[in-house]
Amino acid sequence: MINSLDWRRTHYSRDVNPEMDGEEITVMGWTHEIRDLGGIIFVLLRDRDGTIQITAPSKKIEKEIFEDLRKIKKESVIAVKGTIQESPKAPGGVELIPTSLNLLNESKQPLPLDPTEKVRAEIDTRLDSRFLDIRKPAVSAIFKIKSRMLHSIRVFLEQNEFLEINTPKLVASATEGGTELFPITYFEREAFLGQSPQLYKQIMMSAGFDRVYEIAPIFRAEEHDTLRHLNEVISIDIEASFMNHEDVMEILEKLVVQSITDVKTHCQDDLDVLGRELEIPSLPFERVSYDDMVDMVNSQGVALEYGEDMSRASEKAMGEIMEGYYFITDWPTAIKPFYVMPDEKNPEKSFAFDLMYKDLEISSGAMRVHTPDLLLERIKNQGLNPASFEKYLAAFEYGMPPHAGWGLGAERFNMTLTGVNNIRETVLFPRDRRRLTP
Amino acid sequence: MINSLDWRRTHYSRDVNPEMDGEEITVMGWTHEIRDLGGIIFVLLRDRDGTIQITAPSKKIEKEIFEDLRKIKKESVIAVKGTIQESPKAPGGVELIPTSLNLLNESKQPLPLDPTEKVRAEIDTRLDSRFLDIRKPAVSAIFKIKSRMLHSIRVFLEQNEFLEINTPKLVASATEGGTELFPITYFEREAFLGQSPQLYKQIMMSAGFDRVYEIAPIFRAEEHDTLRHLNEVISIDIEASFMNHEDVMEILEKLVVQSITDVKTHCQDDLDVLGRELEIPSLPFERVSYDDMVDMVNSQGVALEYGEDMSRASEKAMGEIMEGYYFITDWPTAIKPFYVMPDEKNPEKSFAFDLMYKDLEISSGAMRVHTPDLLLERIKNQGLNPASFEKYLAAFEYGMPPHAGWGLGAERFNMTLTGVNNIRETVLFPRDRRRLTP
Repeated sequence: MINSLDWRRTHYSRDVNPEMDGEEITVMGWTHEIRDLGGIIFVLLRDRDGTIQITAPSKKIEKEIFEDLRKIKKESVIAVKGTIQESPKAPGGVELIPTSLNLLNESKQPLPLDPTEKVRAEIDTRLDSRFLDIRKPAVSAIFKIKSRMLHSIRVFLEQNEFLEINTPKLVASATEGGTELFPITYFEREAFLGQSPQLYKQIMMSAGFDRVYEIAPIFRAEEHDTLRHLNEVISIDIEASFMNHEDVMEILEKLVVQSITDVKTHCQDDLDVLGRELEIPSLPFERVSYDDMVDMVNSQGVALEYGEDMSRASEKAMGEIMEGYYFITDWPTAIKPFYVMPDEKNPEKSFAFDLMYKDLEISSGAMRVHTPDLLLERIKNQGLNPASFEKYLAAFEYGMPPHAGWGLGAERFNMTLTGVNNIRETVLFPRDRRRLTP
Repeated sequence: MINSLDWRRTHYSRDVNPEMDGEEITVMGWTHEIRDLGGIIFVLLRDRDGTIQITAPSKKIEKEIFEDLRKIKKESVIAVKGTIQESPKAPGGVELIPTSLNLLNESKQPLPLDPTEKVRAEIDTRLDSRFLDIRKPAVSAIFKIKSRMLHSIRVFLEQNEFLEINTPKLVASATEGGTELFPITYFEREAFLGQSPQLYKQIMMSAGFDRVYEIAPIFRAEEHDTLRHLNEVISIDIEASFMNHEDVMEILEKLVVQSITDVKTHCQDDLDVLGRELEIPSLPFERVSYDDMVDMVNSQGVALEYGEDMSRASEKAMGEIMEGYYFITDWPTAIKPFYVMPDEKNPEKSFAFDLMYKDLEISSGAMRVHTPDLLLERIKNQGLNPASFEKYLAAFEYGMPPHAGWGLGAERFNMTLTGVNNIRETVLFPRDRRRLTP
């Protein structure tokens, strides 16, 4: 058996079709299945986007290749040179008759997890051997959709003149004054991991950047152990000057629709593997005021007082009533962060909104306070120490434009596209209170 | 004076031209300069991409607007409705005669930093008031180029079938066994901030993702205080299966050329502001072997022994000899990380490379070790504890393909595009040993 790294792949499995009958090609991948029928061996070779059948009849191929093939273990990495043969019975209508075989890396047996999905495994077992778990098409599909989703979001934002920014994740103090911060030892000092780029993207408005976006990790030391929370996630953030909450809601709903359309166009195979039928939602998304939401929740027999934040039960009650994506608007000022703009005509209510998908909150946003006096008052009212916000407040004193923005959870949006119920399914290597590896 | 948030911008300064003479428009931005000549006031209004002149002759406009304009302080945020008038003497051949004025947010005086650049400031003063510093065209240009650079890199990688991945920044142990880690308190445990996505992108090769990229922050607790190091930077990482070091060097040099070409096409104004003339380098980039590099360094009178890593003096010596971008190849195995593949024919040398720009290292990469036995041996040889790498090693035991990859420093690449000498210039809110704010 050859054991050479000098071979070069000529084709992926998806590039091969019956019209190529007679062509010599080189494919590389994993031995997904091996069926040894004595006089003939079938090997299903898997690469990123599919499989190709290697057919080895003992009478037609070299004896050495036949014997080597017989010895190969499942999930080993091989390269095969061979001749394409049209074959209506084989998957894709094509089989490859091997002329040379190269074992690039052998797999140990038994496998800790079966990538052919014949044995169902628990999520923890799967995450422990994530590299094998991701070999399953129904798992890799989620991440191919996530990659495309992020791509289409960037395309949309750049079409809309947003500039990409990179803000620091090492910060000196809390973004929102919360207790959900991971402390770091930063040389001789204590620092924290950023729980949101909120303050930085607002400073960029004062810097004159007009429209900015960032797609980056955020870190929250929440002790929640739910299907919707993780301690490290990707946040898609925008901030735009001379805009109000309605302007950025319009940007958000258009982004969602364009992204779904793009994923539907480019990831149909992955959606099929997941058994997912995506509908393109119509614009504009429905707007439900906070007060109406409380009434709707109560109508479902779930208790929620005016002024309270939504409980999980309230979200579920809304999920029973509402289909697809919708906004909840006009939130009480008191339960939203200090940087949210109160409605001048009714300061108990604010220009804040959440974007929901059924019972899942996927985005929060608002028009922001842009005048330094009101901002200082709001910081004090929420019991926070203005001294911690000194550098942030300075940006409001020397020409901060009116502005608005939102943060969209990449994993939660991905859950609405893929239909998975556990956020851990949408992260390659999830981090929760119990899990820091792999 | 109106003080309304209901106005909507109709045009940016760059959208306005002399052919629009007579049109009514609304512009928004900062009062960059105000010249009060008694009977006429000129206001230069600045927005993200330029300026437009507001011309207010006392006899032609409403008295109230004239008096209000007179009172406006520098760097305040205003919106102006007015009529475009062709004016060959004004910048851009256009001036705006105001019919309505809206003071959106007033700026305090005096400014801690002058965004019109009439007074030069030290980098620390500038970073302390970064929101004002970024208002300078020669500063914002760097970040517009950075945004475009990242865009063009993603386009290139996606054209080349790379999938975007997101790997965790919260990790249980060191990537490369180094001491340059920031410790985090992760609930009851100690964790660390990722210094590189190296191990995760390799695991994704075993997961069958074939070609992956990630553009994300990395964190290094280096105590260096130099013009080329920061403690948080953006790393552009790729990893590709069934490829060797030469394949990924070719991807890297093509990426550099495509990115420079794209920046030159889309950011000519920003390059002009920086006085930067970008040349498109020709392909392939020159390859200098490590041994030849040592000879070249010595020929410049700088001491460097065979087997030693490059000192700063060695880099400078190479910068005296070499123009533009070039690779240094065939590095001694002993001074490269454990995951670098030794050359089978000469195991003292490895399949590692660095990409340099004059005297600046901007990327490191290699073909990787893909067999578990050799990898374990290399980990032990470097004095590291295999137990810390248990989850990583598992990915090599069950079908790891041969693979190669590199990491490219976004800020260092941006330095080569913009010509700035201090890496702090290329980060909105830099983090070094002394600086954690803003």
